[in-house]
Amino acid sequence: VDKLIERLRKFRDDRDWAQFHTPKNLAISVTIEAAELLECFQWRSDDARTDKELKGNVESEAADVLLYLVQLCDSLNIDLIQAAHHNVGRNEHRFPVDSSLGVAKPKDREAQ
Amino acid sequence: VDKLIERLRKFRDDRDWAQFHTPKNLAISVTIEAAELLECFQWRSDDARTDKELKGNVESEAADVLLYLVQLCDSLNIDLIQAAHHNVGRNEHRFPVDSSLGVAKPKDREAQ
Amino acid sequence: VDKLIERLRKFRDDRDWAQFHTPKNLAISVTIEAAELLECFQWRSDDARTDKELKGNVESEAADVLLYLVQLCDSLNIDLIQAAHHNVGRNEHRFPVDSSLGVAKPKDREAQ
Amino acid sequence: VDKLIERLRKFRDDRDWAQFHTPKNLAISVTIEAAELLECFQWRSDDARTDKELKGNVESEAADVLLYLVQLCDSLNIDLIQAAHHNVGRNEHRFPVDSSLGVAKPKDREAQ
Repeated sequence: VDKLIERLRKFRDDRDWAQFHTPKNLAISVTIEAAELLECFQWRSDDARTDKELKGNVESEAADVLLYLVQLCDSLNIDLIQAAHHNVGRNEHRFPVDSSLGVAKPKDREAQ
Repeated sequence: VDKLIERLRKFRDDRDWAQFHTPKNLAISVTIEAAELLECFQWRSDDARTDKELKGNVESEAADVLLYLVQLCDSLNIDLIQAAHHNVGRNEHRFPVDSSLGVAKPKDREAQ
Repeated sequence: VDKLIERLRKFRDDRDWAQFHTPKNLAISVTIEAAELLECFQWRSDDARTDKELKGNVESEAADVLLYLVQLCDSLNIDLIQAAHHNVGRNEHRFPVDSSLGVAKPKDREAQ
Repeated sequence: VDKLIERLRKFRDDRDWAQFHTPKNLAISVTIEAAELLECFQWRSDDARTDKELKGNVESEAADVLLYLVQLCDSLNIDLIQAAHHNVGRNEHRFPVDSSLGVAKPKDREAQ
């Protein structure tokens, strides 16, 4: 991820795009790309088989989500990977194994 | 990220949640979390100063986006970091420095 | 819908909120509310039975999406209902009955 | 809107698409279209002038959001316009004029 950050900074500065990359605009772009990722699954049933075309599309759209997410975090000096580990720890406490076992939406699941 | 994947697999399996974690449902969750990330910036002007509260909220929501993104890619055997590097390479070609310099939305920018 | 527009204008002006209601901010809010609407269905299977609680949640979130959508269109002098009829007409041509019958994603379906 | 509902039902049934139009899938589509609507404003500053091209794009994308929203509500027997009026009434109470005047994000604003 560190190497990715370096490449993205250079990419942005070579094109003088920092002026557009406000945190707000980057957050907008994360959401837009996330919806494009979701579009890969539009009209598909939950248990549809995964084919090569789907995998390729998801690969590209998921990568775009990550690229904006990394840039947003870089712009606010947030360590994304560390924050993710922190949230996993939080979730391990929030959803105890006993009460969560096989339950799709335990209390507060939406906050995961 | 590899360590994150391991922790998330264990978290999921301890709770028997694999049954809910279809790729489609994970993509839905990426989008929902992305919108919660965007909500941190709702009604804020582009140039509003970043305060500590905003940073904390973004940190937590960005992490949640990443957690679902990582799980989605893991479920489809996609190497997310490698895919991200691939897309940066693609963008370096798609937006040549000369024609993109200082231009907010060069042709095809929406596809970035 | 006309009556809704009148109420929303008064609501906004009584609170001096027009300053925040830029088209961009209203579009952001449409997306955030849409994701909250989607959250009603998070982790549910496609064929889960609809209960009263779900219906109540969808009712409230769908209404919020509409409220921002109406305000966005009002701010740009767009007649939303007329635009919707226009797009139905477009779709009737774009997806001919013969080639679309029972096909989940005919060519260009994503553009519907 | 009633006329719209009639046209959309006929459109769907002529193509035998009811099988894909589960409430969950329609909610997904609302979100995808909302993000396409937001994309019209990507990289634009808050105060960028509205031109004819932007207006045309917003018109089309906003209409698509409405079409799926109407279909979702129809599938669950929800009266969307009535629900919207209900929420305006709720907001009038939730955000009293006195305490909300000129304040971008009064307490609970995110719930509007």
